[in-house]
Amino acid sequence: MTRLQALLGIALPIVQAPMAGVQGSALAIAVSNAGALGSLPCAMLSGDGLRGELQLMRSQTSLPYNVNFFCHTPAQPDLARDAAWHAALQPYYEAFGMDINAQPAGPGRAPFSAAVADVLEEFRPPVVSFHFGLPEAALLARVKSWGAKVISTATTVDEARWLEAHGADAIIAQGLEAGGHRGMFRTDDLSTQSGTFALLPQVVHAVSLPVIAAGGIADAAGVAAALALGAAGVQVGTAYLLCPEATTSAIHRAALQDESAHHTALTNLFSGRPARGIVNRVMRELGPIGTVVPGFPLATAAIAPLRAHAEKIGSGDFSPLWAGQNVAGCREVSARELTLGLATMATIPRR
Amino acid sequence: MTRLQALLGIALPIVQAPMAGVQGSALAIAVSNAGALGSLPCAMLSGDGLRGELQLMRSQTSLPYNVNFFCHTPAQPDLARDAAWHAALQPYYEAFGMDINAQPAGPGRAPFSAAVADVLEEFRPPVVSFHFGLPEAALLARVKSWGAKVISTATTVDEARWLEAHGADAIIAQGLEAGGHRGMFRTDDLSTQSGTFALLPQVVHAVSLPVIAAGGIADAAGVAAALALGAAGVQVGTAYLLCPEATTSAIHRAALQDESAHHTALTNLFSGRPARGIVNRVMRELGPIGTVVPGFPLATAAIAPLRAHAEKIGSGDFSPLWAGQNVAGCREVSARELTLGLATMATIPRR
Repeated sequence: MTRLQALLGIALPIVQAPMAGVQGSALAIAVSNAGALGSLPCAMLSGDGLRGELQLMRSQTSLPYNVNFFCHTPAQPDLARDAAWHAALQPYYEAFGMDINAQPAGPGRAPFSAAVADVLEEFRPPVVSFHFGLPEAALLARVKSWGAKVISTATTVDEARWLEAHGADAIIAQGLEAGGHRGMFRTDDLSTQSGTFALLPQVVHAVSLPVIAAGGIADAAGVAAALALGAAGVQVGTAYLLCPEATTSAIHRAALQDESAHHTALTNLFSGRPARGIVNRVMRELGPIGTVVPGFPLATAAIAPLRAHAEKIGSGDFSPLWAGQNVAGCREVSARELTLGLATMATIPRR
Repeated sequence: MTRLQALLGIALPIVQAPMAGVQGSALAIAVSNAGALGSLPCAMLSGDGLRGELQLMRSQTSLPYNVNFFCHTPAQPDLARDAAWHAALQPYYEAFGMDINAQPAGPGRAPFSAAVADVLEEFRPPVVSFHFGLPEAALLARVKSWGAKVISTATTVDEARWLEAHGADAIIAQGLEAGGHRGMFRTDDLSTQSGTFALLPQVVHAVSLPVIAAGGIADAAGVAAALALGAAGVQVGTAYLLCPEATTSAIHRAALQDESAHHTALTNLFSGRPARGIVNRVMRELGPIGTVVPGFPLATAAIAPLRAHAEKIGSGDFSPLWAGQNVAGCREVSARELTLGLATMATIPRR
């Protein structure tokens, strides 16, 4: 048993990565019931939505689970930047016969707050994880006061040391291979971001907390390799995207099974922060890293209507097709079967 | 014993990465005599230089060794690009009181050729490795005709399949963590480049040849992790840079032991092709990826005099400080001790 298993009370040293937009409580419940740590992404849930999902978690698993929040400082609106962003998107709006000024704001991503903690406290989730750092000290103390273990993500050794100094109980070392948003919060320089093979052992060496490896881990051999590099557990996201319990769209599922899934890139076009997804039309044409993109999470509002329109006609040209650099683990099997497969750690492939 | 050990006749599943500019035969000989595969970087050697080094190899080891060549298509001079590049470097020349037009051409990097094969044939080196693809079929057949095993580097699954189809005997899967030049030859899109954790198992799955993992492997735990992911061996470069047998400059050695070594980036400023090195002044000011840089290897000529001048006054501001993303394995010990340490594969760190 690793220190992570002991800390969180989980049978398997595996965390299912919280993936906002492509899963809800169903995936988290299935993973927790398989003995790993299921995660509920909460950054895009309203108070009532959060309460409903937590009620489902509580009623359908008696095993530990994780709830995940963002703790970014929301960017302030910048009229010049917005105008440049709108100008970049305008040709697509025109092609779709849509008016960029008539669109409602897209779904937001609010940072963790006292109001959210009020809802959480009713449920006392056993594990709370954060992306983009940690909440302010008083709020973090409140979360820990009800017994929750706290996890956050480091993309550099510096971030890992900061998280240890500021109260995390375990640290995710997020290698550059990982899908979705980079958890970076002490730098915005992408050249500081390392592959898992380089980042993981350096984080293990730098902190005394249990370290969870993330990025590129797709199967039991990957789990074994991460443990060999000193990880106390792994976090796996991409591999779960085809499970029936995930809410991954048909377009996203098709992309994951296409040859194109082998080419991902970091892009800021969908939210304002760099995140890894399958390269699609808008990433090719405006990025993948755009220079006129509003800050996180403001970029979403103007691109979301294009996504919605394109998806209605079966196109993922404007969709965030989040995926890591290793989609080889994606399988259309139950989350339970996938989880137990990751945990075999016996499959040593051909050498 | 892995398939790589059987193929190459080596006691340990370890290849010392060829590192032009920071090592010669002394490092390769020490590594081969320790039971791994020592590598002699030959891309910057003249015919006589090559012959001299090969005589040393032959006289000082009876064990297998590797000679490494580039097989790029040299870029054609482009006057407009050269002028832009000179304009970018001009302020540095002025600050140093140097005339950019009075400088001799820097050291070149010639691709593998029939003339080189003539020299090699006298020595029949047991292993020949290539960077940037493979030589044309007739030349490759000649190398193989004298019994040499041929290795080349893949940075994508597509490149691995190409190398297998074109006659390689083993393939290096070069993860994004690796120091020095990216071996990419079927794409110049850096977003196609994956971390070792993602690239390695996908290459192992895609080809039937033995696969050598490179990028981020710094110690015995890294070797164990790579083998768990299906590698038949590993290639390690950065960790050898502080060995006394390496010719790493004092400036480079100091940089590797400084906190700054934790921040590397891919840069094309020193040669025209992307290569990973420690971020220094010229990388910060003109790059790391510059847009007016001449093609490989033509960029070197105009920046080399700045490097030479700066190094004379103790500065690495204009030096290629090649290093991978994991310098934790750099130790000032003999290459033999370092090699044997990598091969213990028993050190499982804290979980």
